[in-house]
Amino acid sequence: MARVSQAHLDARRRQILDGATRCFARNGFHATSMQDVLKEADLSAGAVYRYFRSKEELIVAIAEETFALIRDAFEAAAEQDPPPGPDVLISNVLGTILDARAGEPGADPRDLPRLMLQVWTETLRNEDLAGLLRRGYEEISGAWVELVESYREAGMLRSDVAAEHIARTLIAAAQGYITQQALFGGIDPGMLRDGLRGLMSMGGSAPARR
Amino acid sequence: MARVSQAHLDARRRQILDGATRCFARNGFHATSMQDVLKEADLSAGAVYRYFRSKEELIVAIAEETFALIRDAFEAAAEQDPPPGPDVLISNVLGTILDARAGEPGADPRDLPRLMLQVWTETLRNEDLAGLLRRGYEEISGAWVELVESYREAGMLRSDVAAEHIARTLIAAAQGYITQQALFGGIDPGMLRDGLRGLMSMGGSAPARR
Repeated sequence: MARVSQAHLDARRRQILDGATRCFARNGFHATSMQDVLKEADLSAGAVYRYFRSKEELIVAIAEETFALIRDAFEAAAEQDPPPGPDVLISNVLGTILDARAGEPGADPRDLPRLMLQVWTETLRNEDLAGLLRRGYEEISGAWVELVESYREAGMLRSDVAAEHIARTLIAAAQGYITQQALFGGIDPGMLRDGLRGLMSMGGSAPARR
Repeated sequence: MARVSQAHLDARRRQILDGATRCFARNGFHATSMQDVLKEADLSAGAVYRYFRSKEELIVAIAEETFALIRDAFEAAAEQDPPPGPDVLISNVLGTILDARAGEPGADPRDLPRLMLQVWTETLRNEDLAGLLRRGYEEISGAWVELVESYREAGMLRSDVAAEHIARTLIAAAQGYITQQALFGGIDPGMLRDGLRGLMSMGGSAPARR
């Protein structure tokens, strides 16, 4: 018998992760069993356990993939010269990650946001996931800090506020957008672009006395 | 025997909700049993079931309380004339809700953020909670829209972006802050105030060509 090719192994792994993503997004992490994942992925237990020994391993793999997706989308958006403003950049990145699974059979545009909400909640009780999330967060935060410094150098940022605070605030806006998309659905990333643009027009000054 | 006073009933209800809050924040909604809540609140099953028949009823009651807390804090902050800018207002409201439980025995500053994250996730599978969240969100969003219009009238907002998009973006920033506080802890609401202030200084113009 011919050896199983790497492409076949990768496709099989993809099939399992896609099935697990749909299960977790639809029913939540706790209400999903490995049996549900096998059924959704249309594979035998032997085929699945070869790749992932537990639901915990599945959710860690999905979280890793999601971070890679965000990082790649961010890097692609940020490498433009000059970089786009935070309003444009954040909505481009969110649009890219929301579209990433759009072509897959059975995919729902709320799958990824719902999954990210599950991952955050699961992190409260899973040390491996907490470590992964902390590293992913620091990486994305570091990339934003660099970008904020380049806005400052380009004279686009007229404030001496710490770059880290702006970075955290932009990540918070993206996380909140993901939460709203998971909870309510149907929110275009352009909403966040316009909302940030509106805030950016406020000048940061104290309100005028009437 | 004297009739049980309303004050006693209220105190007992409070004791149950505080116990449930600690359990849910610590172990999550799914890993907490009604037995755990009885033990944490130091009450008998009869005493608890008189008020709440299920975990679902407990989480709905906690979500209702949390919305009332946010609404009150928001109204108190917004009734100043002129209203503070969004950077100051949002950090005041977050500071107030994070401090709300600070004096209670056994309280952890991450309890409420962790609980809110649980509520969002639970909403994906609980229709009652989803309805409650949708109404609460619309209420808070409506209050922000009014405030944004008053910023515009006061000349503080130099953009014709829809007020609703700015409202949603500010709520997203607050939700993301709560997520970061739940996941990592130790983040002062002043971070969000400074971050928003920095963004507000960016002028909303396209990046200068170098």
